[in-house]
Amino acid sequence: METILAKWEHLSASSGALRFLDINLRSIGQVMFQNNPLTGILFLAAIAWGSHAAGVPRVAIAGIVAVVVANLTAQWLHVDNEPLYSGLYGYNAVLVGLALATFLSPSALMWVYVVLGASVSVIVMLGTANAVKPWGVSSLTFPFVLTTWLLLLATYGFSGLVGTALPSGNVITAFQPYEASPLKLIDLFQGVLQSISQVFLKASAVAALLLLAGLAVNSLTAAAFALAGAILAVLVAHLFGAESDLITGGLLGFSPVLTAIALGTVFYRPSWRVAIYAMLGTLFTVIAQAALNVALTPFAIPALTAPFVLVTWIFLLPRQCFEPTAAGAGDVVKARTT
Amino acid sequence: METILAKWEHLSASSGALRFLDINLRSIGQVMFQNNPLTGILFLAAIAWGSHAAGVPRVAIAGIVAVVVANLTAQWLHVDNEPLYSGLYGYNAVLVGLALATFLSPSALMWVYVVLGASVSVIVMLGTANAVKPWGVSSLTFPFVLTTWLLLLATYGFSGLVGTALPSGNVITAFQPYEASPLKLIDLFQGVLQSISQVFLKASAVAALLLLAGLAVNSLTAAAFALAGAILAVLVAHLFGAESDLITGGLLGFSPVLTAIALGTVFYRPSWRVAIYAMLGTLFTVIAQAALNVALTPFAIPALTAPFVLVTWIFLLPRQCFEPTAAGAGDVVKARTT
Amino acid sequence: METILAKWEHLSASSGALRFLDINLRSIGQVMFQNNPLTGILFLAAIAWGSHAAGVPRVAIAGIVAVVVANLTAQWLHVDNEPLYSGLYGYNAVLVGLALATFLSPSALMWVYVVLGASVSVIVMLGTANAVKPWGVSSLTFPFVLTTWLLLLATYGFSGLVGTALPSGNVITAFQPYEASPLKLIDLFQGVLQSISQVFLKASAVAALLLLAGLAVNSLTAAAFALAGAILAVLVAHLFGAESDLITGGLLGFSPVLTAIALGTVFYRPSWRVAIYAMLGTLFTVIAQAALNVALTPFAIPALTAPFVLVTWIFLLPRQCFEPTAAGAGDVVKARTT
Repeated sequence: METILAKWEHLSASSGALRFLDINLRSIGQVMFQNNPLTGILFLAAIAWGSHAAGVPRVAIAGIVAVVVANLTAQWLHVDNEPLYSGLYGYNAVLVGLALATFLSPSALMWVYVVLGASVSVIVMLGTANAVKPWGVSSLTFPFVLTTWLLLLATYGFSGLVGTALPSGNVITAFQPYEASPLKLIDLFQGVLQSISQVFLKASAVAALLLLAGLAVNSLTAAAFALAGAILAVLVAHLFGAESDLITGGLLGFSPVLTAIALGTVFYRPSWRVAIYAMLGTLFTVIAQAALNVALTPFAIPALTAPFVLVTWIFLLPRQCFEPTAAGAGDVVKARTT
Repeated sequence: METILAKWEHLSASSGALRFLDINLRSIGQVMFQNNPLTGILFLAAIAWGSHAAGVPRVAIAGIVAVVVANLTAQWLHVDNEPLYSGLYGYNAVLVGLALATFLSPSALMWVYVVLGASVSVIVMLGTANAVKPWGVSSLTFPFVLTTWLLLLATYGFSGLVGTALPSGNVITAFQPYEASPLKLIDLFQGVLQSISQVFLKASAVAALLLLAGLAVNSLTAAAFALAGAILAVLVAHLFGAESDLITGGLLGFSPVLTAIALGTVFYRPSWRVAIYAMLGTLFTVIAQAALNVALTPFAIPALTAPFVLVTWIFLLPRQCFEPTAAGAGDVVKARTT
Repeated sequence: METILAKWEHLSASSGALRFLDINLRSIGQVMFQNNPLTGILFLAAIAWGSHAAGVPRVAIAGIVAVVVANLTAQWLHVDNEPLYSGLYGYNAVLVGLALATFLSPSALMWVYVVLGASVSVIVMLGTANAVKPWGVSSLTFPFVLTTWLLLLATYGFSGLVGTALPSGNVITAFQPYEASPLKLIDLFQGVLQSISQVFLKASAVAALLLLAGLAVNSLTAAAFALAGAILAVLVAHLFGAESDLITGGLLGFSPVLTAIALGTVFYRPSWRVAIYAMLGTLFTVIAQAALNVALTPFAIPALTAPFVLVTWIFLLPRQCFEPTAAGAGDVVKARTT
């Protein structure tokens, strides 16, 4: 594997086209913090399969269009090469493309939206990176969340864009005690896998396995934390009595999965203390996910990965309490936030 | 012109009263980033005409009262002379005064509100300037937006203040496909002019022309970008299928006009790349305006210039990608944010 | 008094258990900025009395459990001793515990929530302190507000937690002109006292007197500003025509009380200018309280002390305009924000 990657690095250094391909693959891998083109390929396969299985191939296409547009925009903006080559200007756009094509019905203006959202996501990324620099934290997927929220909200004011899959706006009411539907082990298992695939807005066990494989080729620890985070999220949500459909659909678990990877493997040097801390953060992300689902009800938009961003920022700020990774200490974070 | 201004500078340096008049005029000019008393006079004429034409002279009076109160408050707070003399502690108050008198029905408490809002806007300005200093961006009209939002929201809890012209609170619903009302060229033309006059909360073509004149006496480029921004905003809003009344009333265009001036002429050294960047920012401000209109629906308050502030901050943060103006590099921004 | 405290300091330095008791008492005192174990005892008595009088002793117990859990969490996180010993990692948890037990109906999961909220509040405190460090302001009770908001919002998504005492979600509507109920002097007097006790979520005159005593043993000025802030808040709310029940229940006054103490006695060196400035801040906190009550109506959660945090941050940011106290200049603020 190492040798293949080394050869690939060599090849992409020699050709502008291959380099650009490399950047886009790494961008897809960076959605889950993996700076690795092979991870990108496996993630792309997961996206393609998930879109195909759901009968919406345009979603995968929108993701690809978006990441390409974003990396072209980044080059037009003369960004530094290091973060560009690591895929840090493209991962938000991948998600913007997937989300817009998932929530909006297809039309020419939808594609205008994808291109516009992808290029603006780069500017938001540059802006966020500068804004959070004094705090030494990473931009995470905040640029994706902000850009997509604005674009989705605006559709309620435009007749040219229709949000067929958006939640409907409502006043917040007390939780309706639903009829008892005791989850079976198989349901929880489905919830765990879909918690992983929902990171890319997909409800697909096959996609989840491809994503885990993509993580594993770059970091076994990351794969383990993703799985552990998904299990913890499903159990906690079930314990607190969350709606069964949300649990089995993975809709309360995708943000916790990202929190588990970020806190447990990316920014702090792994240890038992860090593992417990990451567990607390993962658990609290379930709370934050439920909270933001409620808070966004009046606005009729989805929470996206905002709960992950919020909780991970909170848990990364007290960095004096833990030993950072080389990444967390400077290199990677620097790359990630430059 | 230059000689008149030079003479005026000389006069106002010699007399406390003339200096104070100068400060208040510059404050009015600074609403559109122009540090020029002549611009202030023309802007004031626009405000006066717009208020007179709409049959609400009290609105213009509230604006004047507010700017005077703000500049007195700033002096009581011992602020630095340079930003004070440039009108940087007064421009938010101008807008606070205009907005409160526009949205609330007249009463003694309304005037208490104007005085209170004007003086608090200075403190919010000082606070915002300190808060955004690490990011090297300007406070823009954020102090106006925050102060006015709080004051307007509070009226729903006070029987003494009635918000006759406030939007009504509502749950967000899918865009109602309104009957086709194909805009004619004359409507678009009206939309362009009123997009400019709505910066001062006025729907008046005459006021718009006075504002353009005010910009032109200080900076032809600023006038050109204001006009171009308004045209772009109207076309984009129409393309996306926004409500015709909002377009022709200039209600989707005033924030983009400010974005166009700020990004195109104030903070970055004009160039083709900057012009394209400013165009993208202006376009995205239309999206942000539609988005915030929707997001504020449950709160029953207007978006004011928040879309301009949000998008311009985002587009100013990646300042390493463009060459700043002398202003953007330090002097002017420093004055603007101290 | 001084000698008793000196002896106590000596004792607690010699014993781990007494030191931990000392930390928890100081944590309770820090809710109103008083680093004094005697103040903590009197505040604890106020909490106990208020809970007993309202027939909800579990509220006081939740407050105590929370502060203990928080200080244990802080030690597990290896925080610095100085702020730990000053009670700065516990005061938010006190409020988290009181708030959760006040708004949620009792159940095993409610206690899970108290423990979870208390330990997360420490992480939010560490994070906030790092986040606001560039601005030189204190964290105030922001960690309490954020943690509690997320936990309360999430209950609307969990069948296991029921928010019996939460406000009901609603669309914002124009103020209903209630029937005239001219407040009598006795009502205003009650409003003043309950404005003080509501800082600890209690509506009790006896608790208010215990709190004033607790302030007075550490700082007469703080007690005076608390009382003056409460009087000003009640009068201003009445002048603007706020709902009588809110005024007499102290629900528009507890945030202004905290603003008055913070601006008038903690961070700026007392003077006439500072007193006037604190008065303006206190007055504007009443507006912010009414505004946030309205803004949170769609979310069906209470404003807690958010109005205090917002206005005090705004009024502390322009610190170049006033002379800081030793605390404001570094020592205390540093302790408070480390």
